[in-house]
Parts: sequence; C-alpha cells; structure tokens
Amino acid sequence: MLTINRLGQDEAKVLIAGAALKATEIGVPMCIAITDESGNLIAFERMDGGKVHSATIAQDKAFTAASARKGTHEYNEACTPGNGNHLFGIHTALGGRLCIVGGGLPISVNGEVVGGIGISSGTPQQDMACAQAGIEHFNRSCL
Amino acid sequence: MLTINRLGQDEAKVLIAGAALKATEIGVPMCIAITDESGNLIAFERMDGGKVHSATIAQDKAFTAASARKGTHEYNEACTPGNGNHLFGIHTALGGRLCIVGGGLPISVNGEVVGGIGISSGTPQQDMACAQAGIEHFNRSCL
Amino acid sequence: MLTINRLGQDEAKVLIAGAALKATEIGVPMCIAITDESGNLIAFERMDGGKVHSATIAQDKAFTAASARKGTHEYNEACTPGNGNHLFGIHTALGGRLCIVGGGLPISVNGEVVGGIGISSGTPQQDMACAQAGIEHFNRSCL
Amino acid sequence: MLTINRLGQDEAKVLIAGAALKATEIGVPMCIAITDESGNLIAFERMDGGKVHSATIAQDKAFTAASARKGTHEYNEACTPGNGNHLFGIHTALGGRLCIVGGGLPISVNGEVVGGIGISSGTPQQDMACAQAGIEHFNRSCL
Repeated sequence: MLTINRLGQDEAKVLIAGAALKATEIGVPMCIAITDESGNLIAFERMDGGKVHSATIAQDKAFTAASARKGTHEYNEACTPGNGNHLFGIHTALGGRLCIVGGGLPISVNGEVVGGIGISSGTPQQDMACAQAGIEHFNRSCL
Repeated sequence: MLTINRLGQDEAKVLIAGAALKATEIGVPMCIAITDESGNLIAFERMDGGKVHSATIAQDKAFTAASARKGTHEYNEACTPGNGNHLFGIHTALGGRLCIVGGGLPISVNGEVVGGIGISSGTPQQDMACAQAGIEHFNRSCL
Repeated sequence: MLTINRLGQDEAKVLIAGAALKATEIGVPMCIAITDESGNLIAFERMDGGKVHSATIAQDKAFTAASARKGTHEYNEACTPGNGNHLFGIHTALGGRLCIVGGGLPISVNGEVVGGIGISSGTPQQDMACAQAGIEHFNRSCL
Repeated sequence: MLTINRLGQDEAKVLIAGAALKATEIGVPMCIAITDESGNLIAFERMDGGKVHSATIAQDKAFTAASARKGTHEYNEACTPGNGNHLFGIHTALGGRLCIVGGGLPISVNGEVVGGIGISSGTPQQDMACAQAGIEHFNRSCL
C-alpha cells in the first residue's frame, strides 16, 4: 500500500488567494485552477473578467504540472521541434490536455508533489508570475 | 485469408519485466504498455511512482509503434516543421493519439511486427532505453 | 493536507491474478484493469482471447467504481429511466467514460477506497464474478 | 505467440458485393464497412445515395460485431434498461463507438471470428438483411 500526501481544500483556497492577489496587482483577471497530486480538480476560480477558454487551459496546466511534477514552461522549452531530444509533439497528447504553455506549476511539500496550480488569461509570463505568487503565499501560510 | 502472428500475454509479461528492470536500474519508475500488432492494449504496468498522464502516453506510443512499424522517435525526427518532407503535423492525427515522442518501439519476430512497447515517465532518452531493454529481454527469453 | 492510501503495484498484481484465476475457471478470457483510488490506471491484462473493445470498458469500469466508491452494477440498477430518482443519464457522462455496466468494484481497506477493479469480455454477471474473485484473493493475500 | 486468422482484401470485396446486391434489390443505397478481427477498417463503400452519417455508424457496427463476436442487434436486445442483467449503458461506451443498433455481424470461418461487417442507411431490419446477405455471399464464394 502506498501513502500519498494531497492538498486539502483549505490549502487550495490559500493558493488561489495568493494567485488572485498578484492578478489584481498586475490588473489581469485570471482563471485559477488547483488540482490534487493526481491532476484532478479540487478548486477553481474565474476572477470577474477572466477569459472563458482559459477555464479549460488553467485546469490543463494544473493537471500537467501535478502529473509531470514540473512547470509547464519547462515542457515548452524542451519540446522545440528539431532539437534532437525527441520530445516535440508531447503537446498534442491526451487530446491536447497535456498543456505546455507557461503558467502551470507543481506544488511541493518536503520534496513531494501534493498538487498543481494552473493560471490562464494573461501572457505566459503573467500566468507564471501568478502561479508562483500562489505558491509563495501557500509556502508562507501553510508550511 | 491472412495469417497474423501476435504477442501473447506471457510474452507481454516478459517485455514488461525487461523494461521495468531497466527502469529500476536508472531510478525512474515508468508506465509500460504493450499492445498487439494492431495497436490494441494487452498489458500495462504503472510502476509505483510512475506519472499519471504517462499511462495514456505509454499506450499511445505502443499503439503508434506497432501500427507504423517503426520507433516513435523516427517520426519525431522526420516531422520537424519545414524539413520539406511534408510529414510535419502527423502528431495531431487521431486526436493526438498518434504519438511521436521517443519511447515507442515495434516488436518484431522474424522480420514481422507482432506488437508494440511504449514507455513514459522519464525523458525520451530514458523511455527509449527502457523500451529497448524490454525488447532485448524478450529476444533473449522468447526467441 | 490529506493523507491518502493507494494500491501499490504488487497489490494490483494480486488482484489481477485472482480475477484471472476465476476467468480461467469459467472459461472466459477477460480484460482486467486496476486503477488507483483516483481512477488512474496502474495495471492491465488482456488475457489471450479477451475482447479488443473490452480493454477500454474494463478501464472505465475500474475508474467509475474507484471514483464513485460503489459497484458499477449499483449505478445500473439505480439509473433505469423513469424510476423517479433522477439518475438516468449518468451513463453518458464524461463522454461515456462513466460506465454503469456490471463488472466494476471498488477496492476497500479498513473502510477506505484504495483503488478499483474493472472486468470486461463476458456477461455482466461473469464480469462481476471475476471482479469479486480478484477482491477476495486480494483480501486473503494482502490484508 | 498467437496465430490469428484475418479477412483479406479480396474477401472483403466479396462481402461488400453481396451486401450491395441485396441493397440494390431492396432499393436502399447503403454504407457498407468491413473490419478485420480486431475491428480495424479494411474496406468501405458508400453506395451512391448512401447517408453521410451512416459512414461512421457502419464502421462502428462492424467494429463492435468483430470485437464482441456477436451481432449488434444482440446487444440491443440485451441492454434494455431495467431488465436486471446490468448491461444497460454499454451503448455509450468508447464515446458511443460501441454500437448496439442492428446491422453489424461478425464474420466467422471454422468457428473463429475473422472480421466484421456493418451496414447503415436503412432501417435496422434492412441493414441486418444486407449484412446477412454479405455473409452468405462470402460463405458461398470463399469457404
């Protein structure tokens, strides 16, 4: 039997609060998704003004980051076509659900991935900044 | 009427064992999928710690390799955009199920493809090494 | 933070062995899928002669049973159209992935669902008997 | 290693010819699909006037019949809701690709399923009659 640590709802709310604060600060209303360590959704908020299609993308970013245990932007850099590492094409896997656009980050506690956060509605850099802000707020509040 | 040779369940288990041994050796728990010559799943193992999304990707790699009768990394190299061979874009076929990420290999006996193996959770190079190890274990044990 | 118990690969193999033994006994080669508590695949075997389409259905049954924490046959009985409980139609959810055909059972340890088993290729009654046999073999061997 | 018998292209053409003859006789231009024993398409004809959506349904009927090794109409009868056999709901499996509408039949040689035929554009009874006519023409010509 395996024992798995997983984000709870209270912690998911902290992650969203940290990301939303940053989104407000930079003036970009965001879609914010939090998944558990298996990539299944546990919390979601589309801030007033967040983009409709970003609701799906935010979930896919959080899913990808939690499951792959790395940032979606890392996939992005690694799968440039013609780079010889045979990773190009991963972005169409799972019907496109595997998302390589920046803005998804794994959430780790004591070196173990316990969930994922995915942000969408801004540029990848804005999305990444809000994901990072969510994690920093979580680290300050919950660890 | 055609006569087709196809991997049996016992042989699938040998392939998985060989791949898993290599995965343990390099310290990367893998998702390992074996399909028949038509690309349909006959055996699968997600080693403890293998990635959730890799379960689908491993199956898609095995399907692609068995059906195309070549390694998925060969597709990868051939479908770089702008290379003039008009293969770019094949990775979105079948809703993305046609997988061009390295780690899928056809399994051949006497020059005939009898199945496919697909590995996912590591880098493409790690996945390819484990797929190859599975085939070598199969060749030593079953041929 | 939540702490989750989850089937490991060794236990998945025990479940498959128990189900396969029963399948051999009744003379129906089966597709056998084991998922973790989140419904993600950890092990699969299509016994020689198992049906191609049953590979997907077995996985969907295991997914549904693990996630819903009940047998798929219980959904079946509850979602007869016109029975007044407003459950009819659940079988088309998730693109049909939510499976209400008998043959999926949750796997519980100390009252907690740690995974799911799904069987397909026979009648629902045969599938259910093999799923139950897998669980009984697991209970005898692992608890 | 398993040895599988599979319809060849010449035999597929005979099956289509037999079905098309019957379709012409009853005045209903049909979509006619032939799959191998794994449910993968080997031949298809939309007779002039055949219905567009029936191209997919004919393929799904042939796939289902080959894989399940029984007529799609048998599924239809068995999965009436509320009949207590826990099969209701099978028709939405595989995203609806598992087809329980009459008109799909397995093709058997010496008791072994070697392929499937699926017909669509008429009533289920007309589709079933043409599928049966295809098989009888095949049995007369090829066995």
